[in-house]
Amino acid sequence: MALRGWLGAAAQRAGARILAAAGNPPVRILLPDGTAVEAAGEGARFTLRIGSWRAVAAMLADPETGFAESYASGAAEVEGPLAEFCEAIYRHYPRQGESRGAWKWLSRYLDWTQRRSVRAAKKNIRRHYDLGNEFYRLWLDEEMLYTCAFFPREDASLEEAQTAKMERVARKLALEPGERVVDAGCGWGAFALYIARVHGCRVRAFNISEEQIAWARRRCRELGLESRVEFVLDDYRNITGAYDAFASIGMLEHVGREHYGELGETIRRTVGETGRGLLHFIGRSRPAPLSPWIRKRIFPGAYAPGLSEMLPLLEAGAYHVADVENLRSHYARTLRCWRERFEAAEPQAAAMFDEEFARAWKLYLAGSEASFRSGALELYQVLFAGPRCTKKLWTRDIPLEAAARAGGRA
Amino acid sequence: MALRGWLGAAAQRAGARILAAAGNPPVRILLPDGTAVEAAGEGARFTLRIGSWRAVAAMLADPETGFAESYASGAAEVEGPLAEFCEAIYRHYPRQGESRGAWKWLSRYLDWTQRRSVRAAKKNIRRHYDLGNEFYRLWLDEEMLYTCAFFPREDASLEEAQTAKMERVARKLALEPGERVVDAGCGWGAFALYIARVHGCRVRAFNISEEQIAWARRRCRELGLESRVEFVLDDYRNITGAYDAFASIGMLEHVGREHYGELGETIRRTVGETGRGLLHFIGRSRPAPLSPWIRKRIFPGAYAPGLSEMLPLLEAGAYHVADVENLRSHYARTLRCWRERFEAAEPQAAAMFDEEFARAWKLYLAGSEASFRSGALELYQVLFAGPRCTKKLWTRDIPLEAAARAGGRA
Repeated sequence: MALRGWLGAAAQRAGARILAAAGNPPVRILLPDGTAVEAAGEGARFTLRIGSWRAVAAMLADPETGFAESYASGAAEVEGPLAEFCEAIYRHYPRQGESRGAWKWLSRYLDWTQRRSVRAAKKNIRRHYDLGNEFYRLWLDEEMLYTCAFFPREDASLEEAQTAKMERVARKLALEPGERVVDAGCGWGAFALYIARVHGCRVRAFNISEEQIAWARRRCRELGLESRVEFVLDDYRNITGAYDAFASIGMLEHVGREHYGELGETIRRTVGETGRGLLHFIGRSRPAPLSPWIRKRIFPGAYAPGLSEMLPLLEAGAYHVADVENLRSHYARTLRCWRERFEAAEPQAAAMFDEEFARAWKLYLAGSEASFRSGALELYQVLFAGPRCTKKLWTRDIPLEAAARAGGRA
Repeated sequence: MALRGWLGAAAQRAGARILAAAGNPPVRILLPDGTAVEAAGEGARFTLRIGSWRAVAAMLADPETGFAESYASGAAEVEGPLAEFCEAIYRHYPRQGESRGAWKWLSRYLDWTQRRSVRAAKKNIRRHYDLGNEFYRLWLDEEMLYTCAFFPREDASLEEAQTAKMERVARKLALEPGERVVDAGCGWGAFALYIARVHGCRVRAFNISEEQIAWARRRCRELGLESRVEFVLDDYRNITGAYDAFASIGMLEHVGREHYGELGETIRRTVGETGRGLLHFIGRSRPAPLSPWIRKRIFPGAYAPGLSEMLPLLEAGAYHVADVENLRSHYARTLRCWRERFEAAEPQAAAMFDEEFARAWKLYLAGSEASFRSGALELYQVLFAGPRCTKKLWTRDIPLEAAARAGGRA
């Protein structure tokens, strides 16, 4: 009896410690022995069922990574909507992005092993983007845009919102027919094909993912745009040629702080003092690394910068920052679409890989949605113009209804 | 004859060196002995008449400061429109904001003597803003706004544009009746009075210029707004109280890099994690000090930061940067209005002070107009929200015609 009492009290303490380390969110923890623990205060809105003492130990060492690994393996289960559970956690988590104890060392180890030389970058990118086009087709839109969309209305479809995003970027850059555009980190090529087709631009689009480039080239042939769009399987550091505009949608996250100077150098080399450009990327309201779990399991080598960390790459070339827009609510909305589609296709994803992979991805999508909704992550579009750019760039006097109409049209 | 020939050649060389140091702008230099020098290339569009060898020597030591001092004293004269002359210079100047030779030491000396402790800040601010309300009334609008306006149309009047600016800031902040707003560096109080009158806010407005606060208090009484607006003669570092929103229009330039942390601390102390705010300030596309002449003669202790230099003050509090707008073309337009009014009132300004003072100010206004037009200076509005701010902030889906109408209404 005494031993059982002692063990019960120890379990209580373990549960309370996990909750306290996570900032005492409104969560009831159900331990393997049936002990239920919740923080005093606002009352539990979710239940986290932990199925093994090994998982409890992992969460004691680091609540975030321990939970994520246990969730993926099935050793932990959440009762209630996963994205809302994650959001409640994020809103209580003491200081986002900082990890403690053993995981601090994992964080540094990942930093070192995932450093982004041209070769390492290729490996990092392939681990994520070469999972297979069939996998991404399960839950992305038809044009395979894997970046934040722009919702002109709350009830716009994902397809409509992705088109509106591309139109918005094209308008910010004031693209005109015949202009030369470089697209750095082009994904499956949707933006390059869009500005060639709708705005008549000549585009060279770079990417180091073989699967994505193969897909983009096939789409390019299908659309008969080979004379205007060239897809190049190469690193942004190897971009050559002269262009009127530089666009990079969702690449900076993979560049890594220590290589921002090289990205700035690429911009200066390609669009020079007369050109302009737009960087669209995931950032943070304060500099901090992404969670080690995301870097280990989902995005090797990824880093979401604070604005103050990435702006020097433009300042080094005396580029005018013309406009910065924060679209984080649009990314939360985008991720909700992806997550809902992913959940509907979870059996197929599990069949392609395995159950653990599918659960990890479900958690990544729900956690990302929660991050953008709670403000743990931001989505910035930074529009810039060279010191001798004479182009009149997008001003806010363009009524945005026009952009929404254009989005609906294409 | 040989001596005269040698002197003529030396004069030629001196003129050529001044032109080369200024990046060979399209200017014909007329030296005291009648020698005319111009750079090879695009042909001279302006004539700079230098009346004394002492002025020539000053320009050889530093073309920018040497010219400004000589222009103010009347030892140099420009044929052609002064603002366009300055713009041509700025567009050719090799690397803006960097000074050389003796002036580099002046730059560092000024940095040190004009450091911005609470006491020094008071001295710096009074040197500029306590020149007398009568002086500023000569060329500002009736409400005495001495910051960048927003021109909803190219032909809007200065009064209309200043109102549109205030309305735009109020909308970005989504101000509502009864909300508490702190205005840091309130000038003559126009914005504080506007948001109290039009948006029903309760405002505490801070400034360390006695002349401006006296004016603002009188206007407040005239408008019968004493119950809603309080003007406080004190430094931003001494602001107390809790507020819903923080606004600072044209103060950051006077804060100084080494005190950004204290400004960030003031924001956190006053609006906390749930508040929001807007910083409106002169910046640069790359970090560099302002010209020593501006700091010596016009704005003691002023510094216009690159975005990457000032954003850490918000990141330290994990404030979300919601929106950054660059209004430099609007500031060029604003300065054109001020300059035209100033030129019309130049005799009165000279009578209040002296000829040299009036010429220095004419040059400062023309040079500033040229700086914003050429891109040597930027005007940023940075909108931010605390990590727990639930207010839906301004989005760009508000058609700007509405803002313009509101501007016209008030």
